[in-house]
Amino acid sequence: MVARSVLERRIDQGRGVAEADLVLTNLRLFDLVTGALTPTDIAICGDTVVGTYEAYRGRRVIDCGGRIAVPGFIDTHLHVESSLVTPHEFDRCVLPHGVTTALCDPHEIANVLGAEGIRFFLESAAALVMDLRINLSSCVPATAMETAGARLEVEDLLALRDHPKVLGLAEVMNFPGVLAKDPGMLAKIEAFGDVNLDGHAPLLRGADLNGYLAAGIRNDHESTGADEALEKIRKGMTVLIREGSVCKDLARLGPLLSVATAPFLCFCTDDRNPLEIAHEGHLDHLIRTAIAMGVPALAAYRAASLTPATAFGLTDRGMIAPGRRADIVLLDDLEGCRVAKVFAGGTEADEAAFAARPAVAPVGLDSIRAPRVTAADFRVRASRAEGPVIGIIAGQIITEHLTLVLPFSAGFRDIDPAQDVAKVAVVERHGRNGNIGRGFVKGFGLKRGAIASSVGHDSHNITVVGVDDADMAVAVNHLSVIRGGFVVVAEGAVLAELPLPVAGLMSLESHEAVAEALVPLRAAARAIGATLDEPFLQVAFLPLPVIPHLKITDFGMVDVDAFTVLQN
Amino acid sequence: MVARSVLERRIDQGRGVAEADLVLTNLRLFDLVTGALTPTDIAICGDTVVGTYEAYRGRRVIDCGGRIAVPGFIDTHLHVESSLVTPHEFDRCVLPHGVTTALCDPHEIANVLGAEGIRFFLESAAALVMDLRINLSSCVPATAMETAGARLEVEDLLALRDHPKVLGLAEVMNFPGVLAKDPGMLAKIEAFGDVNLDGHAPLLRGADLNGYLAAGIRNDHESTGADEALEKIRKGMTVLIREGSVCKDLARLGPLLSVATAPFLCFCTDDRNPLEIAHEGHLDHLIRTAIAMGVPALAAYRAASLTPATAFGLTDRGMIAPGRRADIVLLDDLEGCRVAKVFAGGTEADEAAFAARPAVAPVGLDSIRAPRVTAADFRVRASRAEGPVIGIIAGQIITEHLTLVLPFSAGFRDIDPAQDVAKVAVVERHGRNGNIGRGFVKGFGLKRGAIASSVGHDSHNITVVGVDDADMAVAVNHLSVIRGGFVVVAEGAVLAELPLPVAGLMSLESHEAVAEALVPLRAAARAIGATLDEPFLQVAFLPLPVIPHLKITDFGMVDVDAFTVLQN
Repeated sequence: MVARSVLERRIDQGRGVAEADLVLTNLRLFDLVTGALTPTDIAICGDTVVGTYEAYRGRRVIDCGGRIAVPGFIDTHLHVESSLVTPHEFDRCVLPHGVTTALCDPHEIANVLGAEGIRFFLESAAALVMDLRINLSSCVPATAMETAGARLEVEDLLALRDHPKVLGLAEVMNFPGVLAKDPGMLAKIEAFGDVNLDGHAPLLRGADLNGYLAAGIRNDHESTGADEALEKIRKGMTVLIREGSVCKDLARLGPLLSVATAPFLCFCTDDRNPLEIAHEGHLDHLIRTAIAMGVPALAAYRAASLTPATAFGLTDRGMIAPGRRADIVLLDDLEGCRVAKVFAGGTEADEAAFAARPAVAPVGLDSIRAPRVTAADFRVRASRAEGPVIGIIAGQIITEHLTLVLPFSAGFRDIDPAQDVAKVAVVERHGRNGNIGRGFVKGFGLKRGAIASSVGHDSHNITVVGVDDADMAVAVNHLSVIRGGFVVVAEGAVLAELPLPVAGLMSLESHEAVAEALVPLRAAARAIGATLDEPFLQVAFLPLPVIPHLKITDFGMVDVDAFTVLQN
Repeated sequence: MVARSVLERRIDQGRGVAEADLVLTNLRLFDLVTGALTPTDIAICGDTVVGTYEAYRGRRVIDCGGRIAVPGFIDTHLHVESSLVTPHEFDRCVLPHGVTTALCDPHEIANVLGAEGIRFFLESAAALVMDLRINLSSCVPATAMETAGARLEVEDLLALRDHPKVLGLAEVMNFPGVLAKDPGMLAKIEAFGDVNLDGHAPLLRGADLNGYLAAGIRNDHESTGADEALEKIRKGMTVLIREGSVCKDLARLGPLLSVATAPFLCFCTDDRNPLEIAHEGHLDHLIRTAIAMGVPALAAYRAASLTPATAFGLTDRGMIAPGRRADIVLLDDLEGCRVAKVFAGGTEADEAAFAARPAVAPVGLDSIRAPRVTAADFRVRASRAEGPVIGIIAGQIITEHLTLVLPFSAGFRDIDPAQDVAKVAVVERHGRNGNIGRGFVKGFGLKRGAIASSVGHDSHNITVVGVDDADMAVAVNHLSVIRGGFVVVAEGAVLAELPLPVAGLMSLESHEAVAEALVPLRAAARAIGATLDEPFLQVAFLPLPVIPHLKITDFGMVDVDAFTVLQN
């Protein structure tokens, strides 16, 4: 509710009978109605635009140097944790790319810390310059075939429902559960049906898609084909075109986006790592890429602001207009989406604004509770030489389910460098059972040593890939020392590391420091033979047992198609 | 909140693993995304669509004879009272024209009965087949220069705010009050700013429009010029293109409506009388007229359903899609918008459905509490022959402020048939003070007798126009006998009448009976000389002191431009 005194100031400043708090002048406003670029002032009172298309006097006036003003961008689905930094650093990193609103699912920290992790995000969100909204994680744990750090039932989510930063229920990934009318899943849908129900339905089509939508699910960010996305929007879904670090759908879905279809399409990044944000950008990258593909600028900017505002009920934004939030991006050019300056709720997104934010104490600093392991823990007991091997597909999170003959002796299967087959293990690290799942993976190219990560979707146990059992043990044990992160080990020595002590997922450092640290880490991985562009991303998705075809959890290797744990 | 068992049925029926409650088959679905016409079944579970673009089995199947299915129409602003029938009859009258949702402002009954009148509408709304939503009347009384039957302060409105049929605050007509930061006005804006604030800002432009929008107002139905409407949508307003019985804006605003601008434009009827609904139609008339003007069918149908659904937060409708309300209109042809059959929330809008509605007891049956008048009450005391005369402009509600010399003797001014000047009086009828405001009007053409009406915006006192003081008294007194309505009198006898006993505004009869009764009423008015097409509509807007330039209330003649009551 807006206080009377605030209303009065807005009215007076909008009419121009009082000086505006802030006036942006010497700019061209990109009109989301007609696509025109019109020279005008923008008057701002507090956090709200109060005047456009008029000249204004202001207590503070910023000359925008003829730049173009567009409404702040809204990222409709992402996981802050994938940026490897805290929400505060995410804000510093992404807001300068024009993202004034981000709808996040704290799914990773929720799998480690449960409601405590979500509360950390809510508390952080309240302190940020950008408007970070939280959809509550709907599927924690993701499956019954892994050990997560927490379990969130509908009561846990209901306790958080009324927080002002909570938007609704996050990606309902368990679509088989919805279709099978799983009581726990339906309880969550029932509880959040009147607010927001985010979807997640890769390849779901036809009558099963209808059944999923009939439950009230309203959007999807997992469409990978244009025909799939078109079916979904014709059935009333808002489709969020995703371009993350791993999943890249813009090339296939971009051609769908026109002025006519813009009311049905948004953008999202889902998972984007700090190096890619630094090198390519964030939503600004999606916008300029879409325009370069031939999408009309009017359609691209509507999909980045107006459509998500209406689709998610954020009626106080989406356009630069009197009465709406002063979320404004100043561009050097429209087609290139080169961001010069950003205002979020009337605040200029500069280092002073970031420095003025209240700090929020990090949580989960002791979340790595893995057993101490030795080389012997990575011997893989088996009954024969032939067995399952995960086949990596570079740049994708789906894997091949291979069946290969490996060296076998005295009841143990072993690696086979000739076939590029290494060992992979998942070590439970939430202090619950000390499980170790063991298996094999083909495609990393490792010649020596091991790499390990405490980021491992979605349960975030420790995943280690290696060709030397002793180095695998060193890598896992070192993650306990640094409280989680990424590490590269060879011949018993740590070659490179990135500590991620916040729940084993996020750094306490700046996003610049994290991006910088990733460079030697990648180099070290390459030095021991890794041939993949993003070895740590590929490691992080090995334990995700909801993505076909063969994965591994602390329970063991998982045949995702059969939804069962395999024996080695 | 949707109950678990309902969710389960929707999922199963949507997937096609259970028979749907209802299947519409042999139809072509008009796709609001692409504009394609696609043969498909539509599966419905209870009040909700659960399947499209698939074949379905149903417990009940309706062969739609190859007709075209479009989403139910949403009228974004209207006054039910202007149809002269109760909400129940309005439902029967308008739903068959495809209007499955109507957003109404019970402004007229609120001015007579206050909160009791609004509660009658809320209770009625809960019983209807269509979804009638109520915006709470924001300006009761409209001005301080008239006697209304009630006064609604913010506390009165807050008491009704949480009713499920309440959408927000109705047309904030008092835009000068907003700009002047009137405390009562701002209190209402403060109270409803987080739900819906309907606007009403004829000709408001520039910085004053910005000030009005800065207060949070989100839409406007009073734009009469395309440039005015374009300014408003570029400033973030949703513009509701109006085509009522009196105010007709479609010809001027229609050319603005394209696929590109459809996200910003809706339709509304505001005030539409039963004869015009019977002869021309309702929103169906607006749609077909727009298309005939050259508006693309895709844009017209989006403006009739998708845009209002998003603009007013009615996220459960706006498309025919799984998970959304089964508000479906079957058309014989798309361009002509000829409605063959309508489903509202899954219920076929037929006489059986209307007959099954719970009755709601009418209110305000004793609302006419006017003093008994005589011919002497209509003598107009004045100091000289020259004075103000209301100049009627046929078909418009704005009037001319004339200054004419009239017959004058012994301290009284009188009518002048040679100049077509008759008397007009407004008799307070709420039992508060028995005020009589007197004056003169030019342009009715009356040769004898008088016509009177208890419908008189916005306070709904009795307005009488006549050339014979005794007949004026008979007409006013007869309205007390019939408990309100319209009447034509000559030589002391009632020539025709339409009783409107519900608050003096609405009939207890069917809409067909009311439309029928209007025919002899018009004929009787013509018989005594009335030359206007809609003499009773013109009478009804004579007392509206917020419309320029000269009006009359029970206080006397009102110079609207000066906002003061004049002496005769």
